[in-house]
Amino acid sequence: MAKREPFIPIWYHQRRPERSYRSLFKWGDPEAFKHPNRGLFELAREVFGMQNEDFLQPINLGLEAFDADAPVRLDERHIRWMQDVVGAENITTEAYERTRASYGGGMLDALRLRQQIVENLPDVVVAPRSPADVQAVVGYCHAQRIPLYVYGGRSSVTRGMEAVAGGVTLDMSKHMNRVIAFNEIDQTITVQPGMLGPQLEHLLNHAPEEFGAQRRYTCGHFPQSFEYSSVGGWVVTRGAGQNSTYYGKIEDLVLAQEYITPAGIIETKPYPRAATGPDIDQIMMGSEGCFGILTSVTLRVFRWMPENRRRFAYLFKGWDAALNACREIMQAEFGFPSVFRLSDPEETDVAMHMYSIHNTPADRLLRTLGYQPMQRCMLLGSVDGDRAFSRLVQRKLHAVCRQHSAFTLTPFKVTQRWEHSRFRDPYMREDLQDYGILTDTLECAVTWSQLKDVHARVRSFIKSRPRTICMTHLSHAYPQGANLYFIFIARIDSIQEYLKLQYGILQAVQEAGAAMSHHHGIGKQTAPWFSEQMGEPVMGLLRAVKSYLDPHGILNPGGTLGLDMTPKQRAKSWGIGPRQ
Amino acid sequence: MAKREPFIPIWYHQRRPERSYRSLFKWGDPEAFKHPNRGLFELAREVFGMQNEDFLQPINLGLEAFDADAPVRLDERHIRWMQDVVGAENITTEAYERTRASYGGGMLDALRLRQQIVENLPDVVVAPRSPADVQAVVGYCHAQRIPLYVYGGRSSVTRGMEAVAGGVTLDMSKHMNRVIAFNEIDQTITVQPGMLGPQLEHLLNHAPEEFGAQRRYTCGHFPQSFEYSSVGGWVVTRGAGQNSTYYGKIEDLVLAQEYITPAGIIETKPYPRAATGPDIDQIMMGSEGCFGILTSVTLRVFRWMPENRRRFAYLFKGWDAALNACREIMQAEFGFPSVFRLSDPEETDVAMHMYSIHNTPADRLLRTLGYQPMQRCMLLGSVDGDRAFSRLVQRKLHAVCRQHSAFTLTPFKVTQRWEHSRFRDPYMREDLQDYGILTDTLECAVTWSQLKDVHARVRSFIKSRPRTICMTHLSHAYPQGANLYFIFIARIDSIQEYLKLQYGILQAVQEAGAAMSHHHGIGKQTAPWFSEQMGEPVMGLLRAVKSYLDPHGILNPGGTLGLDMTPKQRAKSWGIGPRQ
Repeated sequence: MAKREPFIPIWYHQRRPERSYRSLFKWGDPEAFKHPNRGLFELAREVFGMQNEDFLQPINLGLEAFDADAPVRLDERHIRWMQDVVGAENITTEAYERTRASYGGGMLDALRLRQQIVENLPDVVVAPRSPADVQAVVGYCHAQRIPLYVYGGRSSVTRGMEAVAGGVTLDMSKHMNRVIAFNEIDQTITVQPGMLGPQLEHLLNHAPEEFGAQRRYTCGHFPQSFEYSSVGGWVVTRGAGQNSTYYGKIEDLVLAQEYITPAGIIETKPYPRAATGPDIDQIMMGSEGCFGILTSVTLRVFRWMPENRRRFAYLFKGWDAALNACREIMQAEFGFPSVFRLSDPEETDVAMHMYSIHNTPADRLLRTLGYQPMQRCMLLGSVDGDRAFSRLVQRKLHAVCRQHSAFTLTPFKVTQRWEHSRFRDPYMREDLQDYGILTDTLECAVTWSQLKDVHARVRSFIKSRPRTICMTHLSHAYPQGANLYFIFIARIDSIQEYLKLQYGILQAVQEAGAAMSHHHGIGKQTAPWFSEQMGEPVMGLLRAVKSYLDPHGILNPGGTLGLDMTPKQRAKSWGIGPRQ
Repeated sequence: MAKREPFIPIWYHQRRPERSYRSLFKWGDPEAFKHPNRGLFELAREVFGMQNEDFLQPINLGLEAFDADAPVRLDERHIRWMQDVVGAENITTEAYERTRASYGGGMLDALRLRQQIVENLPDVVVAPRSPADVQAVVGYCHAQRIPLYVYGGRSSVTRGMEAVAGGVTLDMSKHMNRVIAFNEIDQTITVQPGMLGPQLEHLLNHAPEEFGAQRRYTCGHFPQSFEYSSVGGWVVTRGAGQNSTYYGKIEDLVLAQEYITPAGIIETKPYPRAATGPDIDQIMMGSEGCFGILTSVTLRVFRWMPENRRRFAYLFKGWDAALNACREIMQAEFGFPSVFRLSDPEETDVAMHMYSIHNTPADRLLRTLGYQPMQRCMLLGSVDGDRAFSRLVQRKLHAVCRQHSAFTLTPFKVTQRWEHSRFRDPYMREDLQDYGILTDTLECAVTWSQLKDVHARVRSFIKSRPRTICMTHLSHAYPQGANLYFIFIARIDSIQEYLKLQYGILQAVQEAGAAMSHHHGIGKQTAPWFSEQMGEPVMGLLRAVKSYLDPHGILNPGGTLGLDMTPKQRAKSWGIGPRQ
């Protein structure tokens, strides 16, 4: 067993230089860091067979000033036209800003930027000030057949905003981030799509001050990217917040939308339900920028009652018992918890390292009681809603867990610790990658009856790679199934090797029969698997909608949702092998 | 005040003659009747200014043998082809069966049949035995450009199945009514679309005996037409059950579907949620037979725990207080009741007559306490789910009602009485119409903030007609709004007069800004208003889907959903005036 040593790496802990490559790929707040703690570092060193020496010299920090050469290919007259419409201050052709507009939060983006690979940029970034600006640009790009992309929060992990055909990218975050209406009687808020999560939540939490409301509200939508994702991004990708088991996914929260398309304005109204033909909202949500430009969203909001929140945490002896308990909780009809997250044995073990419980007296006690490493599974979460309701759900949930021989960790404030770091865990990605350790995630949706098989098959593929950590959790649960979320950590520094692993996982997910995504979306990354999953009749249907709304194919072209993939893109190996 | 008299009309109380006109329009079980009681009869007599003599001679009972002349126009070779595919026993060209296949449960259908107007029939009715039969017929009709309609339960009130272009109607009720799969782990059942409500519910309630399951289940979907509506009809029209406030509308219950279309098979999988592009299920639901033929549906099911059901009933002093209480119940986050039905003052008054409370000592006491006729509003309902959950919801709901000065009617078993007659109330329609009194319903979806205005405007239009009863209830509630359900009763016997009133109501609903339907659907009846509601860009989108899936326009042609309306049909007066 490794002897404890005082050594820890010198994690990079400075504000990254302005306009450096690192400023493009570092996740989140430039001033904020979360470094791997000793437990995690020691685990990584052990798993990857690394020595302390391997952590002396960070690689590809990306501190260099951004200097990519990226010629603008769009005709100057188009750019002048845009400038006349939105004003010179709302348009840029700088390579740095164009790279910001095209690269998101995905691992492939980070890898490319560390290697100073700058490709697939829009020619110009335009920040519309109003729906009228959007309408003008859409009409012009349609008439002139200029590709049109959009970005809001830059948190896509699916190459969703990547401007592979050049052209124009709309920056919705600069101006299109305002409140349009707040309706306390209906408990709805209507906002522009460029609004980021914290701004929305601040407004709702301060509804009395902001809107003269009687109460305080919450949207209940807290994706891990909360701080740096936009309402529009949530909607067009069908995102989910970590509390979705109670509040619902974004498609459960959206009541009305407005999209500007080459075929006109698609506008829906905020009836909670209707029997008026196909659900237009559900056609437009998930369209990932291919059907139109979202300009307005009406969301359900909930009363903000943080004083009623109750937290829980349990340790189960094994995966089967834990899954049975989770399913029973979701099917027993006493109400749903809000956060609901079950870690599989390997993720539980990593958590024991991260929370510094591994090999402590408490850990030894747990083992004595039958909660063994690489078997035990941790469930954590919280309950929201009315006070009596949240107490009831917690009480009933507790009873189910106890019936399944769970050890109660609730007093150890595990959920509180998780909440404290919930938005900060992605910050560790940069630290690990500075020493060649890559961490990435993939998720999928499953029914309860297929969950164990999908978990086993995907995990088995990932673990077939030597020295690879594979942590899995179930989250976002339903009476009929759940999300399965895979986090893999491996020592990888080549793009080809990374893609080979990622594509292999996608293939394993598909072969196991899961839905290719529960809340990340498809983008350009998963498109080859998307077509296969949906089948040709469905793809034809989506293309029919696409060609009605966007007859010239100007909206997010280049493979998104598999609507216009080249044969090269259709192959499930594109990008692997020597770069062209 | 009218003096009490022993006279009551002789309501028709015989099994209607086989193959009579009445057998085509009488609602429901041929052996079952529900006659208006004395209270309702006296109210009708008073409102419509009718004398006892007016109730001596029933009119247009439709007891005559069906003898309509309806030539088959479809070429004999097509009929032979169908016969070869499905077998002679599964095909008919009899005018009676063709009329059954085209006329549904709507008032216009009943009026036409009482007047022996037989129009818009398919040429042949075919009962497919399997999806393969459906596929063969769809392929043939597509190739030969033969119109293709479908029926299951015959309960459409929107002229949904009316074969206005002739051709073929598929009868899904004869064979396509089987269970495909039951999955207790996922709590789902997969059935063919021709299964009727009681069969589905029987199977689920008897899951241990039928499927060897551990528990008993329910679908939770109980539309008023429960006994005579099919799963497929629920799905393609986006129906709702009376318990939908807890269980959800059908679009919340459907997890997967299979449709056979001229463009191939559209098949979805039962993931509870996914982020894989637009929601294909939500495109196909509500397509009302225009996009494809539904052959399989996977539904969520719930644990059947009738022992936990708790019922409640309250009387409020006025509409405002009642609405405020209902909204608070839906927004307070303590869980939702199951049945949740608030009657407006006029409906409450009619209930007081029907339940024989009007002018009793109890009524006088209520008036003394401030619950005045034509002001007071009755709320009734029930709570389902886990035992502790249903107790909690009832307790919290009770507190809200008391805060809004409601009088508790729970001990008087009002909800039990309503439950007892919930599926039988439509049977009174025939009795009233036998004496020239027409009763019909229209419903729409609203947000809370528009509810009062929509109610006032639609009601004001209906009440502008002299001697017309207009009862309204709110049901199927949500945190953001509800369904508004209008029942109107008037002395009308001409089709033109009926349509003038119905179309006027639809116009008022639209002008008031409500969604044109919450759960009846659009069909051919509401199509002219549908187009206007959705707007041209949305209609274009739906037509694009239609022309991809059904390029020759063979599926439910003749105006359904406004996809292929003639200019005559687009006019909001078609059918009014002398018949062509």
